[in-house]
Amino acid sequence: MVQSRTHTCGELRLQNAGETVTLVGWMENIREVGSNFAFVVLRDFYGTTQVVIENEEMMAIVKPLNKESTISVTGVVRERTSKNPKQATGDIEVAPTEIKVLGRCRYNELPFEINRSREADETQRLKYRYLDLRNPAVKNNIILRSNVVSALRQAMTEHGFLEITTPILTASSPEGARDYLVPSRKHPGKFYALPQAPQQFKQLLMTAGFDRYFQIAPCFRDEDARGDRSPGEFYQLDMEMAFASQEDVFAVLEDVLPPIFAKYGTYNIASTAPFTRIPYRQAMEEFGSDKPDLRIDLRVKDVTNLLKDCGFGPFEGNVVKAVPVTNCKLARKAVDKLCADVEVQAGQKPYWFKMDETGAIAGGIAKFINANPETAAAVIEALALKPNTLVFLSAGKLEQAQKTAGVMRRLLGAACEGHMDKERYEFCWIVDFPMYEIGEESGELEFCHNPFSMPSGGMETLLKAERGEIDPLDILADQYDLVCNGVELSSGAVRNHDPEIMVKAFEMVRLGEDDVKAKFPAMYNAFCYGAPPHAGIAPGVDRMVMLLSGEESIREVIAFPMNKSAQDIMMDAPSTVTKAQLDELHIAVVEEE
Amino acid sequence: MVQSRTHTCGELRLQNAGETVTLVGWMENIREVGSNFAFVVLRDFYGTTQVVIENEEMMAIVKPLNKESTISVTGVVRERTSKNPKQATGDIEVAPTEIKVLGRCRYNELPFEINRSREADETQRLKYRYLDLRNPAVKNNIILRSNVVSALRQAMTEHGFLEITTPILTASSPEGARDYLVPSRKHPGKFYALPQAPQQFKQLLMTAGFDRYFQIAPCFRDEDARGDRSPGEFYQLDMEMAFASQEDVFAVLEDVLPPIFAKYGTYNIASTAPFTRIPYRQAMEEFGSDKPDLRIDLRVKDVTNLLKDCGFGPFEGNVVKAVPVTNCKLARKAVDKLCADVEVQAGQKPYWFKMDETGAIAGGIAKFINANPETAAAVIEALALKPNTLVFLSAGKLEQAQKTAGVMRRLLGAACEGHMDKERYEFCWIVDFPMYEIGEESGELEFCHNPFSMPSGGMETLLKAERGEIDPLDILADQYDLVCNGVELSSGAVRNHDPEIMVKAFEMVRLGEDDVKAKFPAMYNAFCYGAPPHAGIAPGVDRMVMLLSGEESIREVIAFPMNKSAQDIMMDAPSTVTKAQLDELHIAVVEEE
Repeated sequence: MVQSRTHTCGELRLQNAGETVTLVGWMENIREVGSNFAFVVLRDFYGTTQVVIENEEMMAIVKPLNKESTISVTGVVRERTSKNPKQATGDIEVAPTEIKVLGRCRYNELPFEINRSREADETQRLKYRYLDLRNPAVKNNIILRSNVVSALRQAMTEHGFLEITTPILTASSPEGARDYLVPSRKHPGKFYALPQAPQQFKQLLMTAGFDRYFQIAPCFRDEDARGDRSPGEFYQLDMEMAFASQEDVFAVLEDVLPPIFAKYGTYNIASTAPFTRIPYRQAMEEFGSDKPDLRIDLRVKDVTNLLKDCGFGPFEGNVVKAVPVTNCKLARKAVDKLCADVEVQAGQKPYWFKMDETGAIAGGIAKFINANPETAAAVIEALALKPNTLVFLSAGKLEQAQKTAGVMRRLLGAACEGHMDKERYEFCWIVDFPMYEIGEESGELEFCHNPFSMPSGGMETLLKAERGEIDPLDILADQYDLVCNGVELSSGAVRNHDPEIMVKAFEMVRLGEDDVKAKFPAMYNAFCYGAPPHAGIAPGVDRMVMLLSGEESIREVIAFPMNKSAQDIMMDAPSTVTKAQLDELHIAVVEEE
Repeated sequence: MVQSRTHTCGELRLQNAGETVTLVGWMENIREVGSNFAFVVLRDFYGTTQVVIENEEMMAIVKPLNKESTISVTGVVRERTSKNPKQATGDIEVAPTEIKVLGRCRYNELPFEINRSREADETQRLKYRYLDLRNPAVKNNIILRSNVVSALRQAMTEHGFLEITTPILTASSPEGARDYLVPSRKHPGKFYALPQAPQQFKQLLMTAGFDRYFQIAPCFRDEDARGDRSPGEFYQLDMEMAFASQEDVFAVLEDVLPPIFAKYGTYNIASTAPFTRIPYRQAMEEFGSDKPDLRIDLRVKDVTNLLKDCGFGPFEGNVVKAVPVTNCKLARKAVDKLCADVEVQAGQKPYWFKMDETGAIAGGIAKFINANPETAAAVIEALALKPNTLVFLSAGKLEQAQKTAGVMRRLLGAACEGHMDKERYEFCWIVDFPMYEIGEESGELEFCHNPFSMPSGGMETLLKAERGEIDPLDILADQYDLVCNGVELSSGAVRNHDPEIMVKAFEMVRLGEDDVKAKFPAMYNAFCYGAPPHAGIAPGVDRMVMLLSGEESIREVIAFPMNKSAQDIMMDAPSTVTKAQLDELHIAVVEEE
């Protein structure tokens, strides 16, 4: 017997009838149907099996037991008279000759019913997480996560990547999110920091001569919780390749991710290589977003020149974007609800009109379009309008109009039948991000995203900009985002590995070598000893598992999550500590005034 | 081309002659043998390749370059006239038509020569770890670690274990080593702690219904460094099984570890299942240690009754242990050195005599044995002495005599030819640890090791002891140690999963339910809701990799280790932080007086 049993509770079938078996598990339920006659549901990790109590001796053992006690049942397997096709073991039952109590449940009432724990208050679920996890629907997400992580590791290993663990107690980093700090006992007044990501270490590994690195890396950011972000810790599939270009990184993930998404996901179809690539500016124009959901077939059209002077006040002097939806017969009430939803999510009111079944422009702001037959004709042509087409519009400064159009596209796609092929995973790359932008506050040139990405074209491009031959705002960065079904999984980049190009890139924004060094001294020093070009990315594991499980809350894909206030209420963390502990760490708590 | 190359630097063979290839890597060396004639060694992660510079154009590119710059070389592969059989690519060389500089090394002098970095000062090595790791001998340990961890994961997965990650930001634990604390921003005056091990979480997972759990788990203990212990963080192959006995845990590791040790180790032979099991008391008697190195065939013999009254002062009233070594012809000088080494390691002087080649008892304390012919005869019989046998002796209170005998056995085994079959991995289990002992200070009954292990025989045994039917000191715990080649890899246990037995076990040492609860409230609460019996273990990953690599310092098997003072001098951790950071965390540094 392995683990005290001959079989698991999910294993017995009709062909086992007649065998004497031993099962162990939790007494999930007992249904008494006579004085010495009862059905017990025995549950373990693998499933449930029905145990039939038929005599006084066995009844005397199970009757006083509270549900959720653990027991061992030895008995004979027999065919059930009334089979349960929904249960894997539903063809059989076990008639026990011996029942042993292994772990008594002291309580007659549980904080919630195990199999309905998802309906319970979240605080109760987290406090009694060990009971919540007994619910197969909750447990299965954790199993999914484990399987997905294992599959990711195996695929990366098969692609020649070495998993290398990098330090968790490391140095505070000068930018990005807030660090978690750890006071040092041996070095009074000094602190370790938990890594926000192993970014510097992986770049140091490249400089150290490693070729293909990956790590399922724990990352720590002291930021407030969101639906898709757990406070405290999260995990990334962190990877980096030496001498690599964007193409090398894309090729690996296009090979690694789709089979895993198709195998473990709620949907069993995923994009195949190559994933669609969309330049950042095009994404903002066509999808109103840099994380477009490609399952939706709608596109954003620019109608600024056609409509800015149509007489409708909000369009005047503004950029105007349109999202036409063909074959759309939404009722007026549904259109109003969509307008309200867009306003909530975009912070801006959308407008609409439609081409009705007769081919007439009607509803919403139709009168402004119909006011001038030329305008109407031009709009119909530009948007290729056909009868039964709904058109949503946004207006404002470019970014605002785009953003609102993106929200419209997303909500219309979900609401209007036939425009979203939902049951699949659609990946895309967003590429060609601008390197610089004009800062809103400073009014001067600033870095757009990551100052340590390689400017496309390297030193030559920077020198051209310096000589005034190109506009610095047209300089692109070798940087990319991976997006799946409208969710940004990660940013990545070809890194700037050349100290000279780094200094030049900083000079563009009125900084110098000292500023480069101050940011990441170890990395800058390392690059001065001969670094290889390198590139990488770090898709979020929690987000991927959320996509695969179809869950809306990140806490559903973490075994022991903290609550939204960054507390583990089961373990009572964070908690007070003794003065002796603080003294040893050379710190004191500062009382609030 | 993948990663800018057609081949790696370890890949080209004679059959590639004539091909045009592109290689990328570090310019490890350049040897000029004429004005336009030089040999360049190009190194990447996979190996080295010789590049022959034969013309002015190529020479003009490489000559000004510092070693360790990264370059790309395109050229034709050709057979070498003088082949190098020690180099994988030693049959060929590449004659370049194009060389591009990818990453300039700014410095003409490095802190140390790459391929001799192991001889450099450790502080320099750690400060320039990215250069140190370019040395294949250093890098290979990190590759080994990665491969071993990957193989462990795969084997555990194949055995039906799920890897589940448990929280890193959690609660301070009331016992064991010192915790690393993390101040909470959102909860003033409260602290998270980094886990010393995921012990509680894995037991909670069992209570939550998981069946076979494992994790390559980061563990954190704020303790000072030792040769086999890194300050800060280390990793365990943490595992736990529900409804499991000691046998189940043993079966898994006896299946998982030997093939990995044989495949990745310095030696390619490892114990097969079942591993030798040695009860704790027997281990102390026969091996003078609870972590015996079974590669050594020597055994400790008790000669107390024979020698305590032989007239030799140090033996009087003491326990006397002997380690006989057959076929031993150590010179007197070597014997004296062994005596000195034993004294250093055991803190106690050993004694010796020998049966010389004529069969006479001679040397060391021989005269005390020869003083009484009956004693001499009894000793010869008890130790089965033959000519050319060296006997080392220790004396003192039982534990001290045993411990010194253990050191003698270890040093004699290593020093005396034919008594140590070194080139193999010999595993054993130490079992049957006592549950209780008489405390040295208190003089009363106390827990020996882990109060949360199951007492062998459970409640019944405790009740017998309570009724005075057995001596509490004879109660054993279902606890076990895994030992390999004299190194303790881990302790493990069948856990006490039953709150009633837990309370009873605590009552034996004059404690009660409140004390049980105070230690691990979440676990105790969980066990009251129906827990399965469970058992587990957590072999140290760093120690296993040290054994496999044959390294003496744990820093050789960690990619970015801290130094012995718990500093990362490359990253400058720990370091000072801003007052603003501390304010946000509601703490202040307390200045030393």
